[in-house]
Amino acid sequence: MKTGIVILAAGQGKRMRSRQPKVLHPLAGQPLLAHVLTAARALNPARIVVVHGHGGEQVRAALTDADCIWVEQAEQRGTGHAVIQAMPTLTDLDRVLVLYGDVPLIAPETLRRLVALASTTPLAVLTAELTDPSGYGRILRDAAGQVVRIVEDKDATPDERSIREINTGFLVADRAHLASWLEQIDDHNAQGEYYLTDVIALAARDGVAVATTQPAALHEVAGVNDRVQLAELERIYQRQQAESLMRSGVTLADPTRFDLRGQLDAEPDVFIDINVIIAGRVRLAAGVRIGPNCVLTDCDIGAETEILANCVIESAQVGANARIGPFARLRPEARLADDTHVGNFVEIKKTQLGRGSKVNHLTYLGDAEVGAGVNVGAGTITCNYDGVNKSKTQIGDGAFIGSNTALVAPVTVGAGATIGAGSVITRDAPAEQLTVSRAKQMTLAGWQRPRKRQ
Amino acid sequence: MKTGIVILAAGQGKRMRSRQPKVLHPLAGQPLLAHVLTAARALNPARIVVVHGHGGEQVRAALTDADCIWVEQAEQRGTGHAVIQAMPTLTDLDRVLVLYGDVPLIAPETLRRLVALASTTPLAVLTAELTDPSGYGRILRDAAGQVVRIVEDKDATPDERSIREINTGFLVADRAHLASWLEQIDDHNAQGEYYLTDVIALAARDGVAVATTQPAALHEVAGVNDRVQLAELERIYQRQQAESLMRSGVTLADPTRFDLRGQLDAEPDVFIDINVIIAGRVRLAAGVRIGPNCVLTDCDIGAETEILANCVIESAQVGANARIGPFARLRPEARLADDTHVGNFVEIKKTQLGRGSKVNHLTYLGDAEVGAGVNVGAGTITCNYDGVNKSKTQIGDGAFIGSNTALVAPVTVGAGATIGAGSVITRDAPAEQLTVSRAKQMTLAGWQRPRKRQ
Amino acid sequence: MKTGIVILAAGQGKRMRSRQPKVLHPLAGQPLLAHVLTAARALNPARIVVVHGHGGEQVRAALTDADCIWVEQAEQRGTGHAVIQAMPTLTDLDRVLVLYGDVPLIAPETLRRLVALASTTPLAVLTAELTDPSGYGRILRDAAGQVVRIVEDKDATPDERSIREINTGFLVADRAHLASWLEQIDDHNAQGEYYLTDVIALAARDGVAVATTQPAALHEVAGVNDRVQLAELERIYQRQQAESLMRSGVTLADPTRFDLRGQLDAEPDVFIDINVIIAGRVRLAAGVRIGPNCVLTDCDIGAETEILANCVIESAQVGANARIGPFARLRPEARLADDTHVGNFVEIKKTQLGRGSKVNHLTYLGDAEVGAGVNVGAGTITCNYDGVNKSKTQIGDGAFIGSNTALVAPVTVGAGATIGAGSVITRDAPAEQLTVSRAKQMTLAGWQRPRKRQ
Repeated sequence: MKTGIVILAAGQGKRMRSRQPKVLHPLAGQPLLAHVLTAARALNPARIVVVHGHGGEQVRAALTDADCIWVEQAEQRGTGHAVIQAMPTLTDLDRVLVLYGDVPLIAPETLRRLVALASTTPLAVLTAELTDPSGYGRILRDAAGQVVRIVEDKDATPDERSIREINTGFLVADRAHLASWLEQIDDHNAQGEYYLTDVIALAARDGVAVATTQPAALHEVAGVNDRVQLAELERIYQRQQAESLMRSGVTLADPTRFDLRGQLDAEPDVFIDINVIIAGRVRLAAGVRIGPNCVLTDCDIGAETEILANCVIESAQVGANARIGPFARLRPEARLADDTHVGNFVEIKKTQLGRGSKVNHLTYLGDAEVGAGVNVGAGTITCNYDGVNKSKTQIGDGAFIGSNTALVAPVTVGAGATIGAGSVITRDAPAEQLTVSRAKQMTLAGWQRPRKRQ
Repeated sequence: MKTGIVILAAGQGKRMRSRQPKVLHPLAGQPLLAHVLTAARALNPARIVVVHGHGGEQVRAALTDADCIWVEQAEQRGTGHAVIQAMPTLTDLDRVLVLYGDVPLIAPETLRRLVALASTTPLAVLTAELTDPSGYGRILRDAAGQVVRIVEDKDATPDERSIREINTGFLVADRAHLASWLEQIDDHNAQGEYYLTDVIALAARDGVAVATTQPAALHEVAGVNDRVQLAELERIYQRQQAESLMRSGVTLADPTRFDLRGQLDAEPDVFIDINVIIAGRVRLAAGVRIGPNCVLTDCDIGAETEILANCVIESAQVGANARIGPFARLRPEARLADDTHVGNFVEIKKTQLGRGSKVNHLTYLGDAEVGAGVNVGAGTITCNYDGVNKSKTQIGDGAFIGSNTALVAPVTVGAGATIGAGSVITRDAPAEQLTVSRAKQMTLAGWQRPRKRQ
Repeated sequence: MKTGIVILAAGQGKRMRSRQPKVLHPLAGQPLLAHVLTAARALNPARIVVVHGHGGEQVRAALTDADCIWVEQAEQRGTGHAVIQAMPTLTDLDRVLVLYGDVPLIAPETLRRLVALASTTPLAVLTAELTDPSGYGRILRDAAGQVVRIVEDKDATPDERSIREINTGFLVADRAHLASWLEQIDDHNAQGEYYLTDVIALAARDGVAVATTQPAALHEVAGVNDRVQLAELERIYQRQQAESLMRSGVTLADPTRFDLRGQLDAEPDVFIDINVIIAGRVRLAAGVRIGPNCVLTDCDIGAETEILANCVIESAQVGANARIGPFARLRPEARLADDTHVGNFVEIKKTQLGRGSKVNHLTYLGDAEVGAGVNVGAGTITCNYDGVNKSKTQIGDGAFIGSNTALVAPVTVGAGATIGAGSVITRDAPAEQLTVSRAKQMTLAGWQRPRKRQ
């Protein structure tokens, strides 16, 4: 049985009040549509077809590597009309599962249950039981419990309104049956649209037993129509991720103040303090401690390393037993070896720092190769940019860079060299020697302090 | 019909355990009383009278620009007594609405509904339906549903205690009727106080049909008696503001971690990450992104500009397409043009930065005028203060300031000038030339590293 | 009546997925077991015995100053077996109270109530009423309401399952009776373990009236089995602490975003903004304001002092009316007098700062003694470390340190001295004079800007 998945992603999303198509709004850093595509792929379908409309080029551009077929729905004429656009791409398949680009938290497990039902009958529908079903289409069943049709909220009688089982919109159908039903739906309704849900009544009319199942949690079928709903689903998703990490051995100081926007590979006994954001792909080895208010993006932190409060780390690697921060910024291609210390108000970019080296205060290292056991004093600046070119600074093992030093790249400081405080080093400094550039200290006799200007 | 509004603000607030009068405690950055004044003004009343007591001078000093009449209640003898103090200021008006300085979230819409009722009867009272009414005065009604009186919790029979409709204290009355009723209330009760609520029984006795309405939400009538309740109302208010922003097109990464203490004018597609505080009057143009943990006060940020994590911005302007932070501090009168970049550990005060200029690392600019296309190297300091006077630094278009440079103001760096790294610039640097102050680099032969002291 | 307290702390805690014994996982910065020990001590027992098992050495090492007797349970053979190990240490006492090392929030008041019951009967048990009791042992009572036995969830009949009163595991017993009952329990059950709860049935069999009481809140008896439960109890505990502080006169901008990991002694009218962490022992005098995202550990802040956003303060003292931050880091032994100002990107370590002195920008002060009324310019660095030794910097009252100055310790700047910007001060600078080390500023004619390298 070959299944095709159609994802409806053409909705305009007026209530988002956005220039961006609704399905591109991010949840946990990824477009809503990307979440649905991930759920779709988990089923290993024969094909995924995305029906786009408004802003279709934006949508395709944002998801260029999505392994799907793009179909345009030029006019917004309803969900049935949208699926009709996709049908020509599915003629060789056996059945069709319909998902929604703005319903991001649907669980693959729920979809598998739904698809499994379709092996016994040509139509299976995902329904849900709501405490307050108002506004939703109700599932009407006959005395035998068979689904008969969906009645929209505004067309429902008082009795029908009291029904709490609603239509989620998710369905899977035999492709041939679906094609036939779609030919029969019409737009004779208030909105003047073709509704996909009308196939349910057609199926019932044909004597088809419509199978139903329900999601494990209601948020799976919750759609995003405005940014309030977006924020609600964001928090539900974050809470799920947080619980999963806690169960795997990560301590979160406050799971309601943790954001994962990507993928975290954390070994046991990682501790993550309040208000941390993890983005992209991050690996935290065993015993890593992340302080409050840190933002870590695409980085790899070695075992037992401690990242103190308020660090921003992006595309960097840190070895084991290191201590970073507080207030440290590691930028792309910072590579810090084991046992390194990077302190407050330090920025490191495209720089290797050898084992046990220390850069403790108010320093900028860019485009540098720093050996092992080096001490970089407070206020050290690598002058790596002359306005047009970037150049490299090399510092050998065991060197000692005095405070307030400017290293004008390209320049090399030899192993074991000492640079005197306040120097501007423009030529290579030899190994094991003291190199300094310093004007004579003078005291001016008879000098008067400035006076307050009138 | 001319309405006067009396705001009772004389309560001591013992449970606040504060040196500050209760009504001055801030909610969303504004005194509780200021919120009530705002609600009062929304009704365009003929007059607003605030009855103060304890700390009256503090209260008046904190709200000097409030367009209201201040009346002192020298002794705390109850709410009825408080309103009596205000009556002489209202003799030319038709009716009186009573509000409370410690009930800050009352909605103007609710007050309008309440006042509208007073056009048909001399007394209208705001009541509320509580799940747990214990502690509150219950509304007693006769068989016809007419309000008869209020019974205090401690005086209520078991039957009366089961009544869930309570008195909120808010009422509007015909002025003349109110004056007459107030003359008749007494302090013959356990507290020895004159209760405003006693006018309800007097009205009923006079055969007046007491009209009632209820607030849209219970928090509208919730008072602040201690800091736990203050925090509860703060969160409710913040949540309301967050929802309103989201519905207008702002994405909040977490609406429970957003604080607005003032007024935010945000165009669509603004993104605000977790834990941001907005204070004073802030404008965020379309597409602005605010990173986590930022604090923005009284500032204006241009379209598509990105403020990265952990920035503190106050009384500053930033143009469009700029990139600020992380760890940037913009202080009052920082004015950054379009396309500017300000990076980590940079402080900018009373400084103009021209289009496309970059100040990327570890720099302090104060009292400076920086042209367009300037590159300010890491570790640059404007020495704007000599201990008594502040002086200006001027940097022309396209200049390049080498790292670790001190610019001793007053000083001018010409357009296109280059300043060598590590310089101390005390005299003007000509345009298009290299200016440098630098001691000769020397290596000392035979120098020994210091040894560990015993 | 002498009471001994036995704390069962031998559980492995597999679901924690940790290398650390479960009872050492921290809640509010203290091991779970430390919280239980604190509750135990509040009862002034004659003796506290901790039964440890897995990782016993780690546990003892983490709690070396705990005034308790350590008993090893070499094999994990159940709670009854654990108490049996402790009995030989209690032979001189009258009764035994059993607590759990992984149930950290038990309130001393609840324990006192439980122990008081034991003065009238040989066994008192703490039970709780749950909405959903599934999974817990139910309390079976006879027609007279007397406790008969505990039935485990899996052994319960449908009727028994509907009982909502459950066994919390906490009990207090007459020592002699307990010793006798413990001799009679066996391990003939599915787990092959000796259950402490079996003593209840034995007591009932002996005709003992088992007294019961219940905790004031369910979280008191909630155990930690995984990190999700740990996070839940952490939040409950933090909320309790936050409420207690608010009631004592501290304003918390958001009590759900406040973490106290230790002890806070706060005078009235302290304001603590969002997302602050307080650790160790901290004292905040009246009127102190703590900005958002600050982390304060073991420090003392004087009256009316303001700590601005994003500060990290550890083992430091700050006087009254000071202003610190934003982005300031005070490290151990920073001692700041009244009226001091420390600004952004400033690090201060082991340094005294005299009254009214200012260190406003981008500075590192380490091992310094700074007098009163000193102005330390931006970019000042104390070069306190030569690679092996730390040395002191002394700065006299009223000195003015120009920006970008390096002070190479040991060095003294005299009172009223001025240091010119950009200096490297290696020898003492005399009082009241200008001292400077500065190379001549030169402009190089005919210099060409660097070109883009190919």
